[in-house]
Amino acid sequence: MNRHNPVLTNGCGRIRYNGREPLTTLVRLDFEPPSLSDNRGHQERLLASLEKIAPGPWTFPLPVLRRLPEVMDAGTVQAFVCPDTGQVVDLISGVHHEKAFGLAVDLGTTTVVARLVDLADGREVQHAGALNLQMAWGEDLLTRIAWVREGKLDRLRSLVLETINGLNDQLTSGAGIDPREVRACVVAGNTVMTHLLLGVDPRGIPREPYLPVANSFSCQRAEDVGLNLSPAAPVWFPPNVGSFVGGDVLAGVLAAGMARDEGPSLLLDVGTNGEVVLGGADWLVACAGAAGPAFEGGVAKKGIRAQEGAIDHVAIDPDGRVTCTTIGGGKAKGLCGSGLIDAVAQLFRAGLLDRTGALRRGESFLIIPGGKTVDGQPITLDQTDIANFLRTKAAMFAAVDLTLDRVGLSPTDLKRVYLAGAVANYIDVDEAITIGLLPDLPPNRFVPLGNASLEGAHLCLMHRQARIDLRALAARVSYLELNAEREFMDRFAAALFLPHTDESHFPSLAARLGKRQC
Amino acid sequence: MNRHNPVLTNGCGRIRYNGREPLTTLVRLDFEPPSLSDNRGHQERLLASLEKIAPGPWTFPLPVLRRLPEVMDAGTVQAFVCPDTGQVVDLISGVHHEKAFGLAVDLGTTTVVARLVDLADGREVQHAGALNLQMAWGEDLLTRIAWVREGKLDRLRSLVLETINGLNDQLTSGAGIDPREVRACVVAGNTVMTHLLLGVDPRGIPREPYLPVANSFSCQRAEDVGLNLSPAAPVWFPPNVGSFVGGDVLAGVLAAGMARDEGPSLLLDVGTNGEVVLGGADWLVACAGAAGPAFEGGVAKKGIRAQEGAIDHVAIDPDGRVTCTTIGGGKAKGLCGSGLIDAVAQLFRAGLLDRTGALRRGESFLIIPGGKTVDGQPITLDQTDIANFLRTKAAMFAAVDLTLDRVGLSPTDLKRVYLAGAVANYIDVDEAITIGLLPDLPPNRFVPLGNASLEGAHLCLMHRQARIDLRALAARVSYLELNAEREFMDRFAAALFLPHTDESHFPSLAARLGKRQC
Repeated sequence: MNRHNPVLTNGCGRIRYNGREPLTTLVRLDFEPPSLSDNRGHQERLLASLEKIAPGPWTFPLPVLRRLPEVMDAGTVQAFVCPDTGQVVDLISGVHHEKAFGLAVDLGTTTVVARLVDLADGREVQHAGALNLQMAWGEDLLTRIAWVREGKLDRLRSLVLETINGLNDQLTSGAGIDPREVRACVVAGNTVMTHLLLGVDPRGIPREPYLPVANSFSCQRAEDVGLNLSPAAPVWFPPNVGSFVGGDVLAGVLAAGMARDEGPSLLLDVGTNGEVVLGGADWLVACAGAAGPAFEGGVAKKGIRAQEGAIDHVAIDPDGRVTCTTIGGGKAKGLCGSGLIDAVAQLFRAGLLDRTGALRRGESFLIIPGGKTVDGQPITLDQTDIANFLRTKAAMFAAVDLTLDRVGLSPTDLKRVYLAGAVANYIDVDEAITIGLLPDLPPNRFVPLGNASLEGAHLCLMHRQARIDLRALAARVSYLELNAEREFMDRFAAALFLPHTDESHFPSLAARLGKRQC
Repeated sequence: MNRHNPVLTNGCGRIRYNGREPLTTLVRLDFEPPSLSDNRGHQERLLASLEKIAPGPWTFPLPVLRRLPEVMDAGTVQAFVCPDTGQVVDLISGVHHEKAFGLAVDLGTTTVVARLVDLADGREVQHAGALNLQMAWGEDLLTRIAWVREGKLDRLRSLVLETINGLNDQLTSGAGIDPREVRACVVAGNTVMTHLLLGVDPRGIPREPYLPVANSFSCQRAEDVGLNLSPAAPVWFPPNVGSFVGGDVLAGVLAAGMARDEGPSLLLDVGTNGEVVLGGADWLVACAGAAGPAFEGGVAKKGIRAQEGAIDHVAIDPDGRVTCTTIGGGKAKGLCGSGLIDAVAQLFRAGLLDRTGALRRGESFLIIPGGKTVDGQPITLDQTDIANFLRTKAAMFAAVDLTLDRVGLSPTDLKRVYLAGAVANYIDVDEAITIGLLPDLPPNRFVPLGNASLEGAHLCLMHRQARIDLRALAARVSYLELNAEREFMDRFAAALFLPHTDESHFPSLAARLGKRQC
């Protein structure tokens, strides 16, 4: 498998939709000049032109209506309209060559990634990622919800708005356009993040019986959400399945085409929350393991997200000699998720880490000395980093294990395992199996999707049918509440070992370790 | 005809609608408590209950969605919903006895009248009227539009919002409820006033080719409009026919039942703008004469609107001795429209005023000496007051005259003449014919409607079918642009006399004058 070949970096997912019905469409409207014998209102004149092209009914938000007198003078208007809501989004006077842009956002707990899209052809214009500014208020969602209980919902909302608005500023500035020229947006987020973005209190989510305020959100206007796009730009949200499986995961399922496969397939969102979806065209079941931010560089002291300068791959020989690569090939800044997986696996293969995750030579292991890093500080992995990481991988594995068990399947029944999440393209599947993160299956069953949530958001931005499909999909996924399963903790505890308490889950292990250790 | 018996003070117009489908409906929703086996989102739980009662789809504005966690605890929610827009307007927790209130508003250039309505049965709870605070920025719409050109649109908007919000505060305070308990609103205004209320620039209206920005407005949320009602309360606007025939007139046509009559009938809105609608079930034509504020006390120095203390009727004998009545029977404050009509007519009958409107004894006529008025100042009528008044009546008459002419009818063809406007219930038809304001027809053809715009707004607040009918009505009224008719000025000039240059229009005149002068 080609490690650095993101399957879905810049397309529209593994599935295709015919035609284009983007969330916002640009249409050119021409008018006869008004006269005493035709002195309809500006709005009525514009609607008559518009309805010839796209049947209504159409409505004008007040701020757009107020702009009508200034735009109707030239006899031609470029109208941005949202067929889903029947709203006129924006109007520009004259015959200038206008373009409609949209923003697809993967709103993660740790990382937010956005893609500026040309709505005329669906192509990516620019993309950018940033740490979610809420990280300063807690790396995991439980901590942030604790802050909500302290009255900080508005503060957390501001921070995520600032994150997305900052990305939009960066992308539009890079494309040489105004941030307000973005006239449609799809935000695929997990359930808690979408609540926080919309200023909706998520405190019911983490306590029994785990109630979100809403699993689906109607299309909102950008200015109502607080996004600095075109004020009436529609903002669409993929629906959530439940408290711990959000619209981001569902968008990934859509992009993977998994809901059309015969299956059974497994989709793992290798992000902060460790979501699992199992099934295919006939049935789908989903749950989440609350993995934690390990895969996005959020638990190790030297952890960073997958970006320029991140150590993405590591090899360690039995003498502890390290070779590694960084994204971009320059000096190292820190260790991203795939690098962390490699490092733990290689330490284990080299016999420098025992099955319980204890380092055999001291409390800390040096990956790169200070002289070879960007900031001159050495990059190390210590006992706490490893323990945190093992909890993350155990949560992920336990979620997979229990989900398969619930539907009476074993890992070998899986036709495909889709790997979604920012780190998915960089993961060395072999090493991930070695440490017991992924089930022990032949490598050709694993399909790295890259940022499948972002792909799904991109599809929804471009295709009305994708938006319809996603709502239908949400309705047919069965949601497994792991928080309610006593067995989850047992399986989690068993998966805290390398690769697992019960090595029969990993029949290839002896061969793997043998191969390297020879 | 009973002068002081307003035909439509407190009902729902001359026409009835079966059943009630108010703009906002209150429904009680009960829920099973959530559990691990049913941990849908609050929204999804509420929607499932709501859709059993009223098929959706329903959407939640963000501010309402944000309130869900706090209202869902009790297991019962009182939900205010707007079926027209499919929006949930407001939610209240528990089983308290809630009521849904609505506000019907007649938004006039000079006067604003509002009625607080119990949406459960359609009954008026309270009503109140006030001068439009925009009067300080010009008594007529042309002056206010001139201010808009000076950048004062926001200021004018604030003033009309302040007027309506003040009335709502007064009405709700009188009813012992909070202003935010008003959960639906219908505002029937003329085209310019509706533009000003919504902050939409009306400057295209008074200049050729007389273009409004919009003739129909979609249902808005109170907070977007700036009304201090329940924030998501729907605010509905009767559509305008054109620049000078607004939703207020159309609401009056609806309330009069004129569009269902065989006809031809004439509806005169005896207000500041002097609108005329002619026709019946088969055809309708409308125009406006831009009468001016005379009928609402807006031109005479001692003019006031029809209210407690307004002189509503005046008799003057040939020696100039005056007897008069006031609304409420107390001391006089000033002269309202009907009093002004009487005064001019009686001066004319008494031979104290000639056909050109010139007073025969000095520049001023004393109606009431200072000792008998509220402020101790005498109430007089001077030459300027009379000249202003004659322009108003001439505009009204010329509009009627030209409209009849355009469809090839004469006044005697009219089956009924509906008199709408605040002053309509107080007008002495006989005197109005004497001065040439109303066509010379037998008194039993005149039907005073009172504030028919307010009645129409009230109907629209209570009946979905009324809202549908009104939109259909707007589409079938032919709009006559008098500003574009050269003949209008000729007919206006001819009508500046008492009663008219051509006395053949008023065959009963000799008998009238003879009767009194004997």
